[in-house]
Amino acid sequence: MTTSNSNQIIDVKGFTFSAAEAAIKAPGRNDCALIYSTTPANCAGVFTKNKVVAAPLLVTKPRTANGQCQAVLINSGNANACTGAAGLEHAQRSSAVLADELKIDENLVAVASTGVIGVPLPVERLTAAIPTLCATQSADQAQAVAEAIMTTDGFSKIAQRTIIVGGQSCQILGVAKGAGMIHPNMATMLGFVMTDAAISPEVLSPALTKAVDDSFNSITVDGDTSTNDMVLILANGAAGNTVIDVDSSEAQQFQSALNEVLLDLAKMIVSDGEGATKLVQIQLTGAVDASQAKIAARSVATSSLVKTAFFGEDANWGRIIAAVGYADVDVDPNKIDIFFDDVQVVSEGLTTGSQQEELATKVLKQAEFSVRINLNLGRGCADYYTSDLTYEYVKINADYRT
Amino acid sequence: MTTSNSNQIIDVKGFTFSAAEAAIKAPGRNDCALIYSTTPANCAGVFTKNKVVAAPLLVTKPRTANGQCQAVLINSGNANACTGAAGLEHAQRSSAVLADELKIDENLVAVASTGVIGVPLPVERLTAAIPTLCATQSADQAQAVAEAIMTTDGFSKIAQRTIIVGGQSCQILGVAKGAGMIHPNMATMLGFVMTDAAISPEVLSPALTKAVDDSFNSITVDGDTSTNDMVLILANGAAGNTVIDVDSSEAQQFQSALNEVLLDLAKMIVSDGEGATKLVQIQLTGAVDASQAKIAARSVATSSLVKTAFFGEDANWGRIIAAVGYADVDVDPNKIDIFFDDVQVVSEGLTTGSQQEELATKVLKQAEFSVRINLNLGRGCADYYTSDLTYEYVKINADYRT
Repeated sequence: MTTSNSNQIIDVKGFTFSAAEAAIKAPGRNDCALIYSTTPANCAGVFTKNKVVAAPLLVTKPRTANGQCQAVLINSGNANACTGAAGLEHAQRSSAVLADELKIDENLVAVASTGVIGVPLPVERLTAAIPTLCATQSADQAQAVAEAIMTTDGFSKIAQRTIIVGGQSCQILGVAKGAGMIHPNMATMLGFVMTDAAISPEVLSPALTKAVDDSFNSITVDGDTSTNDMVLILANGAAGNTVIDVDSSEAQQFQSALNEVLLDLAKMIVSDGEGATKLVQIQLTGAVDASQAKIAARSVATSSLVKTAFFGEDANWGRIIAAVGYADVDVDPNKIDIFFDDVQVVSEGLTTGSQQEELATKVLKQAEFSVRINLNLGRGCADYYTSDLTYEYVKINADYRT
Repeated sequence: MTTSNSNQIIDVKGFTFSAAEAAIKAPGRNDCALIYSTTPANCAGVFTKNKVVAAPLLVTKPRTANGQCQAVLINSGNANACTGAAGLEHAQRSSAVLADELKIDENLVAVASTGVIGVPLPVERLTAAIPTLCATQSADQAQAVAEAIMTTDGFSKIAQRTIIVGGQSCQILGVAKGAGMIHPNMATMLGFVMTDAAISPEVLSPALTKAVDDSFNSITVDGDTSTNDMVLILANGAAGNTVIDVDSSEAQQFQSALNEVLLDLAKMIVSDGEGATKLVQIQLTGAVDASQAKIAARSVATSSLVKTAFFGEDANWGRIIAAVGYADVDVDPNKIDIFFDDVQVVSEGLTTGSQQEELATKVLKQAEFSVRINLNLGRGCADYYTSDLTYEYVKINADYRT
């Protein structure tokens, strides 16, 4: 639907990037990438909750738990998932080759993969590309990384914010991939955030968790959660700012900017949802608490009937109210209000009439709109982002492997 | 996909049926129906768990809780849901008119509706059709009832079993409708079971609950649960058998036959799933317990990615193993076996190779097949029935109201 602005990326101090072709995907497309920090960076990660965990996560998760990372090796075209002991060995070997080439400690290397499940990773081809990745690094190649990690993505995804800490300008740059299997927690989704801000590990890890919860964990395309999801943040301090510490206004500032970067990326992922033609924000208010708000919003956002109605540009609030009703939350049907953008179609559980529905139909013709649902029971609220369910979604996923 | 056999229905003693056109749906189709027992029947019901409950359920649920019912009035084309106090009054009024016409106690009348949500029921047109319904009753018109209650259904759904109790032949006849919003618990699904067996209320109600759990609550088309679902059973004892009592072998026999009738109907509903071209049985074994088995089976059965792969005839076990992995159950990825019918594609979490996958692809070309998943952790097992997700599903649901 929309494309990211790649022409305005500001360099993140102390980070270099590169991409190369390892012949994992069809010829002619880069399918591996390197993110490198000139010094070991503080880092934090959030990983899939799927119990079937891909090999690269088995390698990366314990390493990033140590709080330090210097290089990230990513490949697309093969998920290295459900590949057993051989897959684990492949992930370890590729990280060892990269560490050797970069002359850094292997424990400072993170690896990530995305693509088809259950096919052995062509590790020789991947390791053969590593010297090229290391030799071609450049500060201005983040866009190339964003492109190399795409699978069924229709466009690359980059977002950036600048914050000023103690007079010092700091960058927060995020790249992500994902278009299908998008669902908490978190779906074939990779996200990498590079910041040159100096920030304490005690701030970094909870900040990432919170930002992921309000972005990547609040979107859905098809309700499936993949084996490979990960979001990493690397903070190398190269901006030279005074260290951002816990409970400071700078920590709040960093959190806000990080939230914005990840929400930008998350919305791009939904817009790029397989076959999607619409980006829809589900704004759920008036729930008993925030947790119930998120459950109700998710129920609407993931309903196939609601999503096909969006595609049909049908202001079918009956399906929306039904999806709220079968969510496991407190609901009084006679108190529910529903709006499409500012057009109210349901008041206290009843239709507001055919004129309002006609106005709402116009709202649905837009490429982006909101569905606002007020349960009128309490102060809990949550946002969720979803796409429509289209012929194209079926086509892409019926044909993906074959 | 398949159609029900309507030409071999055996009369159920003491029951009559009729259907008529009340002009709720487009002209030319019957859209209301009557099921009548010549004497008050023992009855039991199972109802939607959606918190947004349609008006007819508010009327029928407390009445059937009394354990007696003599007449069921059903309309299609309008769900009488989200219609407020007026909708409740419409449901009550139509039942009162029927009771008056039949000269029976109003509390012995059940009402059921299916169709569009949020539109006032044209109650005058419905009540105007009631004299016709009462005047045209006949023992051999169950098929007409099955047809009149259809909405997006592609074919009518009837199933029957005969049991012999103490030398006496008893019929169990079920009619159902449903093709979309099919999901536990239980989706725009109406089911009515008529039996002339004499059976104690203490047997009838738990038998219905159990049979529904293994049939209508073990199918999915799109994961949505409607506001209007109900399954009623009426047992009028007209067969003259000795009363089927608790803990008897006859009660077990009745349970088995009832299970078969409802499972037949449930499979017809999945086969008729909106746009479905395939009926797939998910057989989950080796879970820690039966409850976990059902959760894991449902996770696979409801995955949009799995269902589009079925449509694409792609033996994409990666999506299946991912769906098992994100289900909230105990899983050891290295113990999972997966088969398509008898073709094993995953052994202990790993692919069995491309030759097996080619054989599996042939299995997927069939209109009906099984996916057998063994978690190899325990003895819990469960079956789930699902359909493929197709272009046609999107088309039907994008266009349903407009």
